[in-house]
Amino acid sequence: MLIRPTSEPWLRDAVIAGGGVPVDDHSQAQAAIWRGSDHERLERILAASPDITWVQLGAAGTDAWAKTGLFDDGRTWTSAKGAYSEAVAEHALSLLLALLRDIPRFAAATAWQPQSGRTLFDRTVLVLGAEGGIGREFIRLLAPFRSRVLAGARDSVRDAQSGETLDLMTALAIADATVIATPLTDATRGLIGREQFAAMQPTAVVVNIARGAVIDTAALVDALRERRIAAAGIDVTDPEPLPEGHPLWGLENCLITPHTANTLEMLGPQFARRVAENLRRFVSGLPLVGVVDATKGY
Amino acid sequence: MLIRPTSEPWLRDAVIAGGGVPVDDHSQAQAAIWRGSDHERLERILAASPDITWVQLGAAGTDAWAKTGLFDDGRTWTSAKGAYSEAVAEHALSLLLALLRDIPRFAAATAWQPQSGRTLFDRTVLVLGAEGGIGREFIRLLAPFRSRVLAGARDSVRDAQSGETLDLMTALAIADATVIATPLTDATRGLIGREQFAAMQPTAVVVNIARGAVIDTAALVDALRERRIAAAGIDVTDPEPLPEGHPLWGLENCLITPHTANTLEMLGPQFARRVAENLRRFVSGLPLVGVVDATKGY
Repeated sequence: MLIRPTSEPWLRDAVIAGGGVPVDDHSQAQAAIWRGSDHERLERILAASPDITWVQLGAAGTDAWAKTGLFDDGRTWTSAKGAYSEAVAEHALSLLLALLRDIPRFAAATAWQPQSGRTLFDRTVLVLGAEGGIGREFIRLLAPFRSRVLAGARDSVRDAQSGETLDLMTALAIADATVIATPLTDATRGLIGREQFAAMQPTAVVVNIARGAVIDTAALVDALRERRIAAAGIDVTDPEPLPEGHPLWGLENCLITPHTANTLEMLGPQFARRVAENLRRFVSGLPLVGVVDATKGY
Repeated sequence: MLIRPTSEPWLRDAVIAGGGVPVDDHSQAQAAIWRGSDHERLERILAASPDITWVQLGAAGTDAWAKTGLFDDGRTWTSAKGAYSEAVAEHALSLLLALLRDIPRFAAATAWQPQSGRTLFDRTVLVLGAEGGIGREFIRLLAPFRSRVLAGARDSVRDAQSGETLDLMTALAIADATVIATPLTDATRGLIGREQFAAMQPTAVVVNIARGAVIDTAALVDALRERRIAAAGIDVTDPEPLPEGHPLWGLENCLITPHTANTLEMLGPQFARRVAENLRRFVSGLPLVGVVDATKGY
């Protein structure tokens, strides 16, 4: 197995743990691990490596890759989707609790403040992307809080308790919190825009740990500035990184973390587990985990 | 049942829901609900009301009451201990996640930052007061994170998974996070001081949602200032409210919330449930929930 663009010891260990052999010559490889986003460089390697039938990407989100057309090359492509779900779902919960509990405001205070804050217990939480790895994990973390979960999948929203189906606008209108965990696709780009913010309650909070462009940023700025919603907690932005002076930085009801739901320290062990698992499957001819559907782009 | 010092409609409703009758004349009352901290006023009422055999306090923590000696008057005293556990435990988790995820720092930023943060997954968490209502509820909220829970009770600490018993200093030394949920008693006052902070790891975080005086404040200031521990998140302080200019306000690794784990909005519904429950028990002659042990003071 080829490990590129860099071949750290822990990743070589993961390959060996999965029953594979790390190789440095791409012409000897039957599979490749590719971390990072340089698709042109990978494309050159693959063009010279007809024996490579499987490519494992390090990223969980593959929107940038989908545009390159590489997924149509006849190889099996796997992303790390699902591998990093725990850390990302945890970050979503951290942002949600921080917003409800007014933590950004208290953190900035230098004097005792009046009590404020809301509890997550017994809230209605709309999870967009509820069937993905992060969405499922987030719902698991939410379970102790007796939340009414509205599980948004591609075409509809389902009340997880009653089984009732809602349309998105209705779900947005009754949700205390909307948590975005969808992949970025043509269908989800700008999914939450002016109309959707307008449908939300003025007490609603929005959390985005997916991709910045699922939200229409200009609409978010207006919704927060005019307090049409209470607050947003976003780990991803559009554009990203968010440039200095961007209006979102100036909004006290916008909590921004710098795409840090998974740090490099968190990623390594999780990716190593996935690599080892997929190599075991590859060696045994079993279906791989995280196979990219080229028609969907993720 | 007498409801004092104020008798809000929702509390009268709770009394009726529990099968009681709200009365305004204390001489007709067999039981009393007392919210607030004015023990002298309550003492005067009780002195003139020999028929009152049970007093339900609105507070969960009764350290201030224990000192008055009122608990020795032969009546049954119940505090609201356990009734507010969910909201307080949730706040503890909010503080813990905020510290691990660097949210106070990111909230203050006005430009994109390097990634940082740690996950709560697979951490060792020492819970002091693990057998109390808040401690038990906090451990329940922690469950999805595969934490190794070290459950601290009055005399020892137990590894909840292995059953192994540890002494407090050993537990402090191996904990990634220490969460304080003990009542304030003579035994817990200043429980976490210089020696205890010195035993902790430099990466350790401390959360206090109990009473400020369980921590030696001067020792906390030094531990945070000298980075002997990574950070603290405290909803309670000693003195409280924390005066302006206090050194804790100036420490960027100290997150302070103003005793707001339970806001008035959160308290009402939880206290009403407890009052109704206890009245049902009182009417039926069953043991009450939250009976204060006068010898322990809580």
